[in-house]
Amino acid sequence: MSTSTAAHGPLPKIPEGSGQLQLGALVFDNADLLDIMGPMRIFGEESNRLNIKINFISSTLDPIRTSQQVKITPDYTLDNAPKMDLFFIPGGIGTRTYANNEDLLRKVTARVKESTWTMSVCTGAGVLARTGLVDGYSMTTNKSVFEWPVSQGPNVNWVKRARWVQDGKFVSSSGVSAGIDAALFIVSELTDMKHAEAVATEIEYTWHKVASEDPFADDYEYTRS
Amino acid sequence: MSTSTAAHGPLPKIPEGSGQLQLGALVFDNADLLDIMGPMRIFGEESNRLNIKINFISSTLDPIRTSQQVKITPDYTLDNAPKMDLFFIPGGIGTRTYANNEDLLRKVTARVKESTWTMSVCTGAGVLARTGLVDGYSMTTNKSVFEWPVSQGPNVNWVKRARWVQDGKFVSSSGVSAGIDAALFIVSELTDMKHAEAVATEIEYTWHKVASEDPFADDYEYTRS
Repeated sequence: MSTSTAAHGPLPKIPEGSGQLQLGALVFDNADLLDIMGPMRIFGEESNRLNIKINFISSTLDPIRTSQQVKITPDYTLDNAPKMDLFFIPGGIGTRTYANNEDLLRKVTARVKESTWTMSVCTGAGVLARTGLVDGYSMTTNKSVFEWPVSQGPNVNWVKRARWVQDGKFVSSSGVSAGIDAALFIVSELTDMKHAEAVATEIEYTWHKVASEDPFADDYEYTRS
Repeated sequence: MSTSTAAHGPLPKIPEGSGQLQLGALVFDNADLLDIMGPMRIFGEESNRLNIKINFISSTLDPIRTSQQVKITPDYTLDNAPKMDLFFIPGGIGTRTYANNEDLLRKVTARVKESTWTMSVCTGAGVLARTGLVDGYSMTTNKSVFEWPVSQGPNVNWVKRARWVQDGKFVSSSGVSAGIDAALFIVSELTDMKHAEAVATEIEYTWHKVASEDPFADDYEYTRS
């Protein structure tokens, strides 16, 4: 694990006295289906010992349509959702709506600020970068459109070769499936490696345990080293 | 690929004159979230060149609640859904309801019969086995509760070490994440390997391309060899 090199320290532990942890997943039209559902499968797994409630949060309560035709009905809006312990931002082409809307960005920024942990998957990193809260932090994003998130956060330390990056309270993952690896990493940090491995085995997922081993960086010119 | 050893021949090709392919995914309370969403991410991916419409089918039109708290609203019931080219059966503890309900099983059996391809993930194999249509066929299922699907189909040739198994029109996958591998296999058979690889790279997924290389069989006594 690479937590020892995170400039802003390790992932915060679960605060004393926390009950059920509240996960708020930002959802929007054209969010990527697996960006969302992969990590939710990990965080919602009973055997992870974390007792996490999954809440979908959007700009309105209207059903949203993910990139693969699958609809999700939000539980809360960004205005009425209670404080979320873990705030989650997926990618997908719909991230552009957030990046270009100052009102939505202000609301997302408030949610990121109040969260104990914030996680992004894929181009969700671009939305997180636009909050300005990760200036000076290390982050990664998906390899096929790496330039877009980078353009949203010129003061972020973008890591081109990483399955995921943890820096302080922020965990950003590479593209789509990498969100599963990052979610397993968070489980390992909040419980222990044994429980995270048990979850991976339970879902028969070959976890990329070493964050820096990223087989997809070489597939794209921008991220090739 | 192991198609040459399938006793009932290779996966059927797309019938001449097919327009948009209709995928019917059986959904039910306590279906496994990633069993469903992993393959849907692959089949719904534009770059797979297959033009597949995803339809969720259930016993009623009431929203169903998957194992990870995520609700899905069905598009059709088993009674009113049109013919589906690809019929898809996920796993999850909710499979027991189907296996023990003759009326539901009769309806599922009709759907499997009329489909060009049928795919199961995880313990969805137990439901498929109960239709009787796979007697004498080779199948696999998840490793942690292998015994249950086996008990539902004593005349099926169960393969203990396989990421997925294809036999004639049937493709059965091992547990949860293995559904992604099997879906990529189906894409490779219906288009070509290059397109399937492009989809895997697009979602930064390390595809287990060799069906017989199953790292999870050794984790459980029943499937260890």
